[in-house]
Amino acid sequence: MPPKAVCLGLDWGTTSLRGYLIGAGGKVLAARADNAGILQIENEAFGPALAALAGDWLAANEELPIIASGMIGSRQGWFEVPYAELPAGAADLTPIRFDGFERPIHFVPGLTFRNDDGVPDVMRGEETQIAGVGKDGIFLMPGSHSKWVLVVDGQITWFATFMTGELFAALKDHTILGRMMTGPMTPGVADDEAAFARGVAYGHGHGAPLHSLFSARTLALFGDLPEAGVSAYLSGLLIGAEIAEARALVNNSDPTITIIGEAELSRRYETALSHCGLSARLAPGDAAARGLWSIAMAAGLLAT
Amino acid sequence: MPPKAVCLGLDWGTTSLRGYLIGAGGKVLAARADNAGILQIENEAFGPALAALAGDWLAANEELPIIASGMIGSRQGWFEVPYAELPAGAADLTPIRFDGFERPIHFVPGLTFRNDDGVPDVMRGEETQIAGVGKDGIFLMPGSHSKWVLVVDGQITWFATFMTGELFAALKDHTILGRMMTGPMTPGVADDEAAFARGVAYGHGHGAPLHSLFSARTLALFGDLPEAGVSAYLSGLLIGAEIAEARALVNNSDPTITIIGEAELSRRYETALSHCGLSARLAPGDAAARGLWSIAMAAGLLAT
Repeated sequence: MPPKAVCLGLDWGTTSLRGYLIGAGGKVLAARADNAGILQIENEAFGPALAALAGDWLAANEELPIIASGMIGSRQGWFEVPYAELPAGAADLTPIRFDGFERPIHFVPGLTFRNDDGVPDVMRGEETQIAGVGKDGIFLMPGSHSKWVLVVDGQITWFATFMTGELFAALKDHTILGRMMTGPMTPGVADDEAAFARGVAYGHGHGAPLHSLFSARTLALFGDLPEAGVSAYLSGLLIGAEIAEARALVNNSDPTITIIGEAELSRRYETALSHCGLSARLAPGDAAARGLWSIAMAAGLLAT
Repeated sequence: MPPKAVCLGLDWGTTSLRGYLIGAGGKVLAARADNAGILQIENEAFGPALAALAGDWLAANEELPIIASGMIGSRQGWFEVPYAELPAGAADLTPIRFDGFERPIHFVPGLTFRNDDGVPDVMRGEETQIAGVGKDGIFLMPGSHSKWVLVVDGQITWFATFMTGELFAALKDHTILGRMMTGPMTPGVADDEAAFARGVAYGHGHGAPLHSLFSARTLALFGDLPEAGVSAYLSGLLIGAEIAEARALVNNSDPTITIIGEAELSRRYETALSHCGLSARLAPGDAAARGLWSIAMAAGLLAT
């Protein structure tokens, strides 16, 4: 007899929906994903998207609680959940019950805080992955909007968003820097790795991104950088700048960063961190599922 | 009888062609402009574009020397002229003669130099405008690729390019930051001026552009910034960051900056500089013409 599921966890973002059938102790019994992110769903057909992903799981267990995190809880999602404030650990992320589906769904709140200049930052979904790792330290979650997070005594005490991935795409596709790019970065190709390393070093050390961006053009113009390497160089330049900015902002000198993210992008950041004299550990892939279980447990949503 | 012209000066960039009929002492006798920038000209029809702008001037004076500066001397232009190196004043910008038109054209070289990291920077056209002002100090030439230039003892000794304008356009039209913008900045409208000032202050003071960019989204998300002000805020944020980067890079503490550029954009930078505790003087509008004349004089191209 297979182990009994204790909840259905949903990590539901802008571009994907991941579902986890979770057993005792937060163990992932089964996982599924599709591309039904909130930006892909038309006419707010969130219920049908959930049924398509997990209808059989739900039919097989009528008592199975559902807990969801990510942009699905935003104004553009299914049910807007207020942001919780820092400091926040799993026990502070009390989910809000939603009765607009065939059974209740418990939505995990996102987090917000204001920096010393009074400027707010926000996250939705990352707080749950952090809770799933359950460790202190500096976390890095690369992506379109890369997040750096500080966890002290089991609570998130600081975080910051960097628009690195989206900036790279906009620069590559819509500025003069893209005109000389002959291809995407090819991981493992020596020339690309060298161009990436050079970009990281300059982006990290130079400290003036609006200016250093132009080096992706001039180095190619003077034949100092092969055109095939411009994309890798620009990626490195932006990631190096992000690392320098984040290290200057986070009030913590730990040289080891925990990366939570997709495998290839995590590897690229790990390489960049090593070029900056830092080291990385990669979080297990099921951080969101473990976090959803921890938050559900802390909120008393699971049968004991 | 009208004053006699001593040369035809051409300021020929990527988006426009400006022609000046120049008299003794560098005085502009007549000026014309059209949109025949090198990116607008098909099939390398540069000669016809020049004849269309200034054919009557040339026909009226068969001995009139022609001197040209700007991207027309680049690889994508009519005749590629090598870059000169720093330090460089008007006398170092010896034009290169080109015989591919009905009469000789003398093309002013661009400038290049490598910073302490060995990374090259380049300009084509700005060196001629600087020569036309003929003063020492810090110069700012705003645009898609904003240039900051240091002139000591009549020679350019340093410069740096900032991709501010092109970055603004790419962020506005191709990232999430543009989705909340309800309109362009409206100069003179109080709300927009306030949003611009706030952007300048944060961009100048914060020092982490990849992170501070995200404030254009979060401030609007929390209702701290009206959606109509997001465009002005983002413009201020980037210009403030550019000013901070440039001041950190230029080895000169003069608080007065000379701006050379189009009137509305110059005014916006002047406002931004004042928010940063700096002051600006605006260069006369005919800097390119005066520079072309000075360079032609120094090279002995003009009948005396």
